[in-house]
Amino acid sequence: MQLRKQTLKSQSKQIYDVLVVGGGAAGLSAGIYLQRYLLSTLIIDKGKARSFWMQELHNYLGLPPDTPGRDVLKQGKEHYLSLEGDYLNGYVEEVIDEGETFAVRVRIGRNNPTYEVFRSRYLIAASGIIDHLPKLNNMQNVFDYAGYNLHVCLICDGYEMRDKRAGVFGSSESSLEVAFSLGWFTPHITLFTNGAFEVTDELRERLHTNNYQLVEQPITRFLGKNHQMTGVEIADGSVVELDTGLISMGSKYHADYLKNIDLEYQSGNLVTDKMNRTSHPRIFAVGDLKVGMNQVVIAAADGALAATQIWRDIRRSEGNRHSSKATNSNSLHNQVDNPNLTKASA
Amino acid sequence: MQLRKQTLKSQSKQIYDVLVVGGGAAGLSAGIYLQRYLLSTLIIDKGKARSFWMQELHNYLGLPPDTPGRDVLKQGKEHYLSLEGDYLNGYVEEVIDEGETFAVRVRIGRNNPTYEVFRSRYLIAASGIIDHLPKLNNMQNVFDYAGYNLHVCLICDGYEMRDKRAGVFGSSESSLEVAFSLGWFTPHITLFTNGAFEVTDELRERLHTNNYQLVEQPITRFLGKNHQMTGVEIADGSVVELDTGLISMGSKYHADYLKNIDLEYQSGNLVTDKMNRTSHPRIFAVGDLKVGMNQVVIAAADGALAATQIWRDIRRSEGNRHSSKATNSNSLHNQVDNPNLTKASA
Repeated sequence: MQLRKQTLKSQSKQIYDVLVVGGGAAGLSAGIYLQRYLLSTLIIDKGKARSFWMQELHNYLGLPPDTPGRDVLKQGKEHYLSLEGDYLNGYVEEVIDEGETFAVRVRIGRNNPTYEVFRSRYLIAASGIIDHLPKLNNMQNVFDYAGYNLHVCLICDGYEMRDKRAGVFGSSESSLEVAFSLGWFTPHITLFTNGAFEVTDELRERLHTNNYQLVEQPITRFLGKNHQMTGVEIADGSVVELDTGLISMGSKYHADYLKNIDLEYQSGNLVTDKMNRTSHPRIFAVGDLKVGMNQVVIAAADGALAATQIWRDIRRSEGNRHSSKATNSNSLHNQVDNPNLTKASA
Repeated sequence: MQLRKQTLKSQSKQIYDVLVVGGGAAGLSAGIYLQRYLLSTLIIDKGKARSFWMQELHNYLGLPPDTPGRDVLKQGKEHYLSLEGDYLNGYVEEVIDEGETFAVRVRIGRNNPTYEVFRSRYLIAASGIIDHLPKLNNMQNVFDYAGYNLHVCLICDGYEMRDKRAGVFGSSESSLEVAFSLGWFTPHITLFTNGAFEVTDELRERLHTNNYQLVEQPITRFLGKNHQMTGVEIADGSVVELDTGLISMGSKYHADYLKNIDLEYQSGNLVTDKMNRTSHPRIFAVGDLKVGMNQVVIAAADGALAATQIWRDIRRSEGNRHSSKATNSNSLHNQVDNPNLTKASA
């Protein structure tokens, strides 16, 4: 159920089987699987997952290629709530490992926030990342085009940029490397530093070899209308005409709440095993936050994997959980999971 | 485009970048990603993927939980064809590794079949598995309920069976082990051997401890109507009433066409790395055929991973592929892929 400030008290006394931080594709998919495994779940979402900003998901099997990311999230949340999962809008500030449980401190509400502590046996970090965008004086001008024809993901949208005049907006020399992969799709590439960093002669030489242009002046504003960017105006007043753009400025990782827990990271991403377990036995990571590709369908699969492993863990320690309690609840304690069987039956 | 017998000749001379064996969830998702990477793709499908038989997909993020599996396949095929991928109805009989390419022999048509050889640089094995079903004299009686409330996947449908009277239909003692996992969802379990194998005293003891029933007579027929199974009639004429059932009889692996290629298997499943590459550098395996969980959303993610790795391979060796050929096609040859960059931009 959707939790409200007024109805929080009872839930905050419950120990959930799993608390999921983040209600994006990975978190919702995990929630759906967890509830179907009869595990009590609380998803805490701060709002506006990365996929929320995607105007069209072009590569998600089963959905028409013009489906907005937010439609997937809306359907997923509805699905999760229909399975009686708990969902709270809030911001997870801190997680404390208490041994058998986690204590999760949540800020609720923007104005006059209140704070509440929830407890769970397992934690799924599904809080994702958000792309850094070019810093202009008027950020609304960036928001007008980002997620439309000003893309943030080459794998998702390289196809949309084929043979078009594409701008690449970087935040460092290494971030501009993506231009050479974009070269798979289009030869018409202009790179922008926004006046924020220097470029080595070695890169200049490679750009020259590829016939790519380099613009080092600060960007004044994006031009266009109806969310279709048509070019960039730079500091000297001149205009670079473009058909599309790719922002490559790195990402902010939403993982501050894990700062007091010792976990293995690789370049900001959580390292996990095949079932998405982190280096902590009761913490899983799914979606963009973990090492791997940032794709909605992969995030959805990540959630399924983490939920299934948590179910296996809990089932091995508990035995059963149907509402009738007639049978011996320890019956599975000594059962070794047979991997062939699991495969055949799953 | 949908290939027809009459229009095959030109396609069979082309060398595809990737030939995908199987047009289920994994193969279609791979095809969508591949075409969006501007890689030429041929999907060869024999028809009736495992998910085709699923009346309701209850756990696929983004789709209402009553979506039939065949709707996902239909939408996926339409999506793939809209990206100009080639699709052929046929049965892959044999794959020969020619070094740079694979030669793939395909039988086309059921009556008076013709044979055609297609070539590709990479191969994706997405041909999946199909569940063995109880062998009754009248198989139509089994088909009437399988995929409705006679399930084949505990992970998918355990939730649907909660607190219900469930039959478990096995083909060996070890296949009956799934009953103890089903015990998580319901205590009302009856196991059926269909008179096909013996059961040890050790298992009898464990069944007794759990209050599970064991029926060792052959099954005459399933009872029910409108695809809802309500019980089983056994050889002595008596009836066991049930609300639902779980078939656990193992699977047939659709991988005969790979018999001449040396690949690493584990209990019938192909062993792959994180990007779904098998032990052969140009063969990938996705979906139910590979080691891992058999879930539609995981199959879809598998396809995305394999397609992306193949794109990386080909991009590294070729440089670019946009239709304009103005630039130096070797520009990427010496570029080392930077994993951080790939992450930030993907």
